[in-house]
Formats: sequence, structure tokens, C-alpha cells
Amino acid sequence: MPTETTSPSTRIAIVGAGQVGGAVAYALILGSIACELLLVDVKVDLRDAQVRDLSDVAYATGAGMRVRAATHHEAGQCDIVIITAGSRYGFGETSIQHMHRNASLIRNVVKAMTPFRSDAIVLVVSNPVDLLTSIAQELAGLPKFQVFGSGTFLESVRIRGLLAEKAGVAANSIQLFVLGVQGDCQVVAWSSATINGIPLDKVLSPETFGHQELAKECKARAETIFSAKGATPFGIGSVVASICASILFDKREVRPISHYQPEFECCFSLPVILGRNGIMKTIDMPLASDENAAMARSAHRLKSAMELTDKK
Amino acid sequence: MPTETTSPSTRIAIVGAGQVGGAVAYALILGSIACELLLVDVKVDLRDAQVRDLSDVAYATGAGMRVRAATHHEAGQCDIVIITAGSRYGFGETSIQHMHRNASLIRNVVKAMTPFRSDAIVLVVSNPVDLLTSIAQELAGLPKFQVFGSGTFLESVRIRGLLAEKAGVAANSIQLFVLGVQGDCQVVAWSSATINGIPLDKVLSPETFGHQELAKECKARAETIFSAKGATPFGIGSVVASICASILFDKREVRPISHYQPEFECCFSLPVILGRNGIMKTIDMPLASDENAAMARSAHRLKSAMELTDKK
Amino acid sequence: MPTETTSPSTRIAIVGAGQVGGAVAYALILGSIACELLLVDVKVDLRDAQVRDLSDVAYATGAGMRVRAATHHEAGQCDIVIITAGSRYGFGETSIQHMHRNASLIRNVVKAMTPFRSDAIVLVVSNPVDLLTSIAQELAGLPKFQVFGSGTFLESVRIRGLLAEKAGVAANSIQLFVLGVQGDCQVVAWSSATINGIPLDKVLSPETFGHQELAKECKARAETIFSAKGATPFGIGSVVASICASILFDKREVRPISHYQPEFECCFSLPVILGRNGIMKTIDMPLASDENAAMARSAHRLKSAMELTDKK
Amino acid sequence: MPTETTSPSTRIAIVGAGQVGGAVAYALILGSIACELLLVDVKVDLRDAQVRDLSDVAYATGAGMRVRAATHHEAGQCDIVIITAGSRYGFGETSIQHMHRNASLIRNVVKAMTPFRSDAIVLVVSNPVDLLTSIAQELAGLPKFQVFGSGTFLESVRIRGLLAEKAGVAANSIQLFVLGVQGDCQVVAWSSATINGIPLDKVLSPETFGHQELAKECKARAETIFSAKGATPFGIGSVVASICASILFDKREVRPISHYQPEFECCFSLPVILGRNGIMKTIDMPLASDENAAMARSAHRLKSAMELTDKK
Repeated sequence: MPTETTSPSTRIAIVGAGQVGGAVAYALILGSIACELLLVDVKVDLRDAQVRDLSDVAYATGAGMRVRAATHHEAGQCDIVIITAGSRYGFGETSIQHMHRNASLIRNVVKAMTPFRSDAIVLVVSNPVDLLTSIAQELAGLPKFQVFGSGTFLESVRIRGLLAEKAGVAANSIQLFVLGVQGDCQVVAWSSATINGIPLDKVLSPETFGHQELAKECKARAETIFSAKGATPFGIGSVVASICASILFDKREVRPISHYQPEFECCFSLPVILGRNGIMKTIDMPLASDENAAMARSAHRLKSAMELTDKK
Repeated sequence: MPTETTSPSTRIAIVGAGQVGGAVAYALILGSIACELLLVDVKVDLRDAQVRDLSDVAYATGAGMRVRAATHHEAGQCDIVIITAGSRYGFGETSIQHMHRNASLIRNVVKAMTPFRSDAIVLVVSNPVDLLTSIAQELAGLPKFQVFGSGTFLESVRIRGLLAEKAGVAANSIQLFVLGVQGDCQVVAWSSATINGIPLDKVLSPETFGHQELAKECKARAETIFSAKGATPFGIGSVVASICASILFDKREVRPISHYQPEFECCFSLPVILGRNGIMKTIDMPLASDENAAMARSAHRLKSAMELTDKK
Repeated sequence: MPTETTSPSTRIAIVGAGQVGGAVAYALILGSIACELLLVDVKVDLRDAQVRDLSDVAYATGAGMRVRAATHHEAGQCDIVIITAGSRYGFGETSIQHMHRNASLIRNVVKAMTPFRSDAIVLVVSNPVDLLTSIAQELAGLPKFQVFGSGTFLESVRIRGLLAEKAGVAANSIQLFVLGVQGDCQVVAWSSATINGIPLDKVLSPETFGHQELAKECKARAETIFSAKGATPFGIGSVVASICASILFDKREVRPISHYQPEFECCFSLPVILGRNGIMKTIDMPLASDENAAMARSAHRLKSAMELTDKK
Repeated sequence: MPTETTSPSTRIAIVGAGQVGGAVAYALILGSIACELLLVDVKVDLRDAQVRDLSDVAYATGAGMRVRAATHHEAGQCDIVIITAGSRYGFGETSIQHMHRNASLIRNVVKAMTPFRSDAIVLVVSNPVDLLTSIAQELAGLPKFQVFGSGTFLESVRIRGLLAEKAGVAANSIQLFVLGVQGDCQVVAWSSATINGIPLDKVLSPETFGHQELAKECKARAETIFSAKGATPFGIGSVVASICASILFDKREVRPISHYQPEFECCFSLPVILGRNGIMKTIDMPLASDENAAMARSAHRLKSAMELTDKK
């Protein structure tokens, strides 16, 4: 009889065992969607503490998922590699300095994992997500559709949730995408907002919600959470777990994901079909002309940031 | 210490322990969404066999749901009462005769349960579903929003699935409703079909799918399944379990459900918001003029059938 | 971008699309544990009807599992192959004749699938399960630990459930195995029955339950269900789905499974550790001397049956 | 139609919105077991940030659970009230001082919630858990079986997990209880340790694991995790979510739970049957004589602590 498992068993790696990595892991174990979860972090004590705390979850739930510490190299051999590694703002650090620091960090992380298993999926969660996804894609040595970022998925979830509460319906009965480069320039695609296919403005009177106010509230939400608890782990944790399920079960769900845009030569979010091979297809999204213009602006801003970090 | 559970514990009753009732029960137990499941059927042997077979499922899954035989009266005291009772076509029986037989059957079933618990939800699954829902609603002595039918929910699921396979996306990334009176006259609301809010025809070229063909295939699907296996239990079983979860967890999902239409004084399907009290709201659905005309036709056909069974 | 999924995606095949095969499939889809489900049956109409009815479940739940018809050869290339094919008793047929018929049927089914993918797991569910498992194992051309049968798992679940109701505890808080050759000769291992590790007789007074009566009730249960509804699909369906989860998620749960016993050169049930490679280990079960004798008797009875069918 | 939900919909309150409260909430939402989750904390900013971060999870998963801030009074009207409030060690604070501070904190919290809904279940998670459970029980004005603590449940999960890894089986295939007063004096009930009912020492050779070493490793685990990440939220979060499911679905699982021991007039952990009314029954656990002596010692230590805090 076999002493070790030799058949193909699904493995997910999380690089970065901080609060976001931990919340992603917790959701994956509770959802019980893979056999093994590998945690990678240069902070060995933190990593091992997370392995223990998360193993207790696996023991408690009977999920059977095994959690263990691993090297960068082992992570690169998994079905899915989730990158949550990233530094917080240092004391007196500007946002440009911080961006440079995280850009340099992701370069090191990705290089330490290469060569990847040829069909590995790399999912970037660290911020600024579009910039870091673009960098990871260049260095990973994998087909472009296998390297992408969580992008504006959480922002889309948030704005649907805010609208859902106004409309008195479930958040998953609302269709609405936040797109483009995540952050100050992200674009809400109001022109194709619906409640299960019914144009939003036919169901909700325009007085009950202002586009601008909701877009603003959505953008401010991360910061409000961050300033009170120092991280926004749960929301992003559940979104990333959902992306992993879409991939492993080849679900073909339509999701706003940061991926390569040939026209702009960088990564930002448009709706895609997600499946076992990663990005199966970009959905050609009809946008209003102001939405399109905002998208282009957000892309150009990202390009400038990329050039800045390239020079470093 | 307590010897029996006295705190409010969720109970669902299924009246009719045949193939559909069994499949509904199986999905409810596997989903583990209530404490107790009561089965009611005049065929005592069948009912008891289902209780045993389904109890084995509860034992196996650790769901903790208890399954037991019950009387009509006990069923009427549950949180949700699902009516799947109904006769098959008798030898040489016409569809009118069959309709009369099931109308009379549901009258007896509902009367045997009255008076219902004042906040009970009654969900009619038996066919012809809109007629029987209309009858049940008249007799139940409950607020109209607490008595409704599975209507065209399964048909909506089917046409989304058929489209999803053509589009290469997940079925739950498609929004499309089949509405009106379930059966020959049901109406596909193509004018508000979307892929996550994006109008269908912007994503799929019209050549890849014909409205007429898909509507036809959807309508024929039940019959094809029925003629080969004598029932279509699994599809309807999972749809009904999903309705129960929407209710018990007060999810407020938008679903096509057969409910009271004041303009026509009968029940058929339009999208509603489903919650813990039942139908929380009808969604005002913008339809194309031909869709509207077809809806009215289907309602009038139902009215005639109702008058026919009333006279009996 | 990829047009088809090329990465390793989990597939399960069910050979035999009758009531048991259908119930297994239904539980697998609701549990959403694999990417693709293949149905194989020589009755093409029945198979296609099941594919349609079960696809509706996949569409409804958003599980993303794809259901399709397949050939025997395709089934042999899946991660797990579940064999539920088997004939019912013919009119006037003796149990010996019936056994011969099913033995010959499984020979054909297994041959039609060879050569199997080298790491395929074959799970036999058809009855008489230990005989058919022994036959399948000989013909499959796979390591013995990859070919096994559902054995007395359902019987173990049942007797735990019956005890649980007497003890007022959840079935999964009881440990008790039915072992040996499933059927008339199966053995209840009372000597190691516990409630979460606490010997049963320390918790329940012996008057509240008789070993003989419970063993009898457990044995009769299948027949009672069968005579009223013509099959016992739900119980076995959920048990088989649980076995599939143990395998695919490499859970290492201890389960009573029919597998090869070198001492007796045939397959019957003893507790094993189930994992991604199949039977990872047999647990050496300490039995009372009468239990051991009963096991040996049941094994010899099976050996005789095997010789009988071999001659055919 | 109803504008608000008036039917009985399940509500859980969490008092204390820190790391443990957050992890409990996250697991509850991902498990989708109730309609509404109320968060209570005197730190209003933290509470509101948790409400937002956790609402994003609810929006993302389609669980339909609603998360909102609430007062202590509202919490006392829920089906289950989980108390995770508690202070960390202050600078230079002794363990006695800390105990007094948390004792006084739980008194205030419980008083602020009284009068409770008559069938509310109160679950104490804060440490020292047995002392605080004893205090909460005295003040809550509820039947004793409705007020209990998470006790040694997590410790039991941990030692099963550690053993499971040595035995190469799933943690839920091992039965073993840590009992008594949680902490330095807790007792491992080795005399009834089994692998699915089979005495542990019949399966694992005694050399592969030392009782003392495992008990020590289990005890040290919390501290190791704590010192690296400042809290052990995930393990306890999943255990508490599992307790809530046992209660709401009336599962009758056997769990080690801190509850009232008449002989000692205080609360500590022995196995109980958990159901919709709370503690349905204490299981009479046969212990070895040294285990019994250790239990008594641990109880007396707790009694002294109680007297100490009473005087304050």
C-alpha cells in the first residue's frame, strides 16, 4: 500500500502569511476546496504560528486540508500561488517610496519561485495590485492568462452590497462592475448595472441612490476599515477564496479581474471568464463614452507608475 | 436539563413522498438547512420507506437533520410546507381530467392542514403549478405573500443553462427569466437577458443561438426527461431546496416565483424578492410589447382553467 | 487564450445511470467536489435523461460541475470510476442466477474500460458488492489498493443511526462498524462500539438496546425500503459521495470499505484509511472471538460464491 | 406585502469585536448558518470597521447573512450570544490582576444584556473561560443549561490533530477529550482515547507518541501562536462556529464544553450533548483514577480563583 500520496492532489500556496494571507487561508480551509495549503513567509515565527492556528481549523472542521510551511520553490509547484506579501507604509514613507518598495518585493518573491510549474496559476493580491500584477506577469515566465490579480473584484462586491442594501435585495442579485485600475482611478460601469438583468434605474428610483456618492463610499470603505483595524482581511480573504474555487472547479464565472490588456501593455480589471486554465476569455464590455475615457485615463496613470518603477 | 427541544427549531414539511418529494428532501438534508424534516403521504409504506432512506442520508452526513413521518396537521405547523403531492396521468386520462383530479387533490391536502401556523410559508410544486397555487392560496387562510409556487424557476434555470453552454460561461453568470404561466404559454423575457449585466447580444453573436429554438428546447426538456425516467426529480429538487434556503436565511434573492397577480386574480410567475416572510416584493419587470402580450394570453388561459375547475 | 481546459481538472465517472447512479450523481453535484461528471450506460435514453436532469441541478446550484454522457473508455480515464451498474431480479430468477448475471455484467463493464488510467480509483457499489469488487479487482489491471467497494459503509451508518436515536446523540458521535461480507453474514463489531471514545455500555444501559435486535433491524432496513420504493438510492448515494470526498481531498478518514484481504484472497470490509491513492492502510481491528469467527465464516461463504461464478 | 421580516429569523450576537470576535463572525458568515449577525463593542470605530469588513464577506459569498452594529440590549434578545470581550494583559500586570479585570468586565457585559430573551443561549469564549462562564451563569438569570463556555473544546481539537498527524489519519477519526479547567490544570482523558472506537494503543505503538509530550505540546500551542501573532483567532473561531451549528440545527453532538458541575458548584469541561436548548445532557465519563484526581485538583483551583474574584 502507498505510504504517501502520489496521485494528483490539489495544492494552493499563499506567499505572505500576514493578516490578508491568514484570512485567505482561513476561508480556503473552511470551504475545503483543496488537499494541501502551503504557507510561505520570510518571517518564520509568524509563518509557523499561522500554520498552527490554521491547522487547528482544519482539525476542527474535518476538512482534511493539510496546512504546512513551505519554501518559495515549493510554492511555485502548486496549482495556485496566491501572493499577498507586501509591506505596510513605513514611518514617514511617501506613497511613491512605498510603491517602489513593494515593486521590488514582488520581483524578489516571483524570482524566488521561478521556474514555476508550467500550468501554475499566479494570483496577485498585494497592492498596488495592477502594478504588481503587471510586474509579476513579466517575470513569471508563464503564459499571460495564467498570471492575474484580484483587481477590482472586492470593489465590485462592495458597490453591489451598498446598492443591495438600498434596493432591499441580495448582493448577488445585483450586476455591476468596478473596472480599470484599482484605486483613485477605478471606474464604476453604471451603464450596465442591473438587478438580475433588469436595468437598475427601472427598479430603483434615481433619488434613492446617487452614482457619485456610492462610488465615493465604495472607494472610502477600505480606508475606513483600515484606519480602525489596520487591515481589511476578511473581505479580500473571501473574494480570493471565491477566485480559487472558480479556478479549481473550472466554473467559468464572469469576474472583474486584473489581467493583461494588449492595447495598454499593462494589467487592469475588465470582466473575464475564469476557469481551470486561468483567464479563459475577456468579455467585451460595452461602456458609456465617459466610462471609456475614465478607463483610458486610469490605464495611462498606471503606465506612468510602471515606467517610474522600471527605472529603479 | 431539557429532555426535549423546546426552543424554536426550524422545521420543513414535505407533503407527497414520491420521487419529487424525495429529491427535495435529499437536497435539503445534504444542504443541512433545518432541524427537522416531516414527510406526509397517504401511502404509508412509501412514506416510511422514504423516511428510512432519507434518515440514512442524515446519519451519513452528520447534518443532524431529523427525518420523520407526520400528519397533515403537523405539517401545517412547520416553518415551510412544500406540496409535491400529485397524481400521474391515469390510463386513458385526458389532460383536463388530470387537471381536475390534481385540483381536487390539492384542495383536500390544503384543507387537511388548516388552520396553518400563522406565519407558515406554503410552497406549491405540484403541476399544473399556477392553477394549484391559485387554489391553495384561496383555501389556506394565510396572507397571499405566504402562499406561492415554484412556477417557472426551473424553466429559468434551464434556459440559463442552455445559454451558458453556448456562451462558455457559468449558468449563474447569466440573467434571464422565463415568466408567466408555466407550460405551453410560458414567456422567455429575452429583452432583459444579460451576462452579468451586459446585454446578451453584445456578447454572443445572434447566430450562435436562436431565441425560438432555445425556448423550444427548454420547453421540451421536461418531457424528454420524463419519457425516459418517468419523473424529473433532481432539477426541481435542487430548485426547491434553493427556495427554502432563500426563505429560512432571509436572503432577498430575486427569483421567478408563481404568486398572486392582482390584475389577473390568479397566480403566475414574475420576479420577486424572496425572504423570511415569503414574497417580500414583486419586481416591476420591463417587458417588450410582444412579451407583455404573451404574458396576458398565458394569464387568460389560466383563468379559463380555473373557472373550469371551480365548476367542478 | 485557452479555448479548452487543459490543466488537470477532477473528473468522476458513474457507470450505471439508474436510480443509485442518479442519487450518487445528485449528491456529488450538490456537494460540488469535482469539475466534471461523466455518465455511462448502455440504455442511451435513460443516460441522456439523467444527464439533462442532473445538468439542471448543476445550473441551479452554481456548482459549476459539468455533466455529460460518455463511453466506457472515457470513464476509465477519470480520477474516480463508480460502478453502480447491475440488474434487478428478473421474473422467477433465483439469487444464484441473479449473482451470475451481475458477475458477468461487471466483467463486461470492467473490460470495456481497460486499460484504466494508471492512477484511477475504481469504486464498486453494485451488489453483491464483495463478490463484484473481488471480480473487478482481478480484471482491472490496477494496484489492489485502487479497486475497492462501498462494502458495509452504509450498514455501519445505519446501525450508528439506530443507536444514535436511542442514545439521543448525533449519529456521527457514535463509533461502530459493521464488517465482513455485506449481507446475511455481516458482523457488527459491538466490542469496540463507543460514544466519542466512551464504551457504549458505560453510557447506555444494556436494557435500552439489544445487540441482536439492532443488528437485525439494520439488516432488514434495506429490504423494507426496497419493497416500498424499489430501490434504496439516497442512503447509498450520500455514502458514495462521502467516499469520493475522502479520496479527492485526501482526507485519511477511517471507513469500513470492501478491499482485498490477503489471508482470504477476496474482498470484504474492514476499516481502512482512505486517501488520494485509495486504501492507504488497513486498520488492525481488535475483535471479540465470536466476532472473529463470524468474520471467517462470512469470508468462506464469499469464497464459495466466487468459485461458483468462476466456473461460469 | 411585508416591508420588514417579522417571521422568526435566526440571530447571533458577538460581544467583543476584536480578533477572536472577528474570526468567529467570519466563520459564521462563510458557513451561512443564520440570518443576522450583531456585533457589540464599546470601541465603536473598531466595531463599525468589523461590520464593514464582514459585510463585504456576506456580499461576496451570497450567504445572505446581514451584519450590523448593535447594543448590549439587542444582543440579549438573540438566539445565541457569544462573549469574546476581554482585555489583554496590561503593561506590568500580574495574572491575578488580569483575571480580576476580566471578571469585572464580564460582569458589566452580562448585566448590560439582562434581561435576556428567556430561551437565549449564552456562550462564553473569553479567558479564563471557566471562571468567566461561572460568573456569567450566576448573573444571566437564565437556566444553567443555557449558559456555558467553549472550555477545552479547542484543546481537544488540538490534541486530536497532533495525534492524527502521528497516526496518519484524519483528526475527526480520533476520539479524545481534554477535560477539566482549561489551562495549566486541564486533563487529557487518555484512558478513553480511540481511533473510531478502536483503543488507541491497539493501533499506534506507544513508542510513536508519549502522553506527556503531547499533552505538553497541546498546552504550549496557544502560547506559541500568541507570541508570534498576538492572538489565536482562527482555531477558536472555527470551534465556536461549530458550537453554534450544533445548537441552531439541534445536532446533539457530543462535545467537551464548560458547564455547571453541581458537585463543585462551578463550571468546567466534561463531554455534553449539545442541542437547540443548550446542554441537553452531561455524559458520564469513565476516567482512570489519576485522571479523576487531576480533575478534582483543577476544580479546586478554580474554586479558589472564584472566591478571590468574589471578594473584589
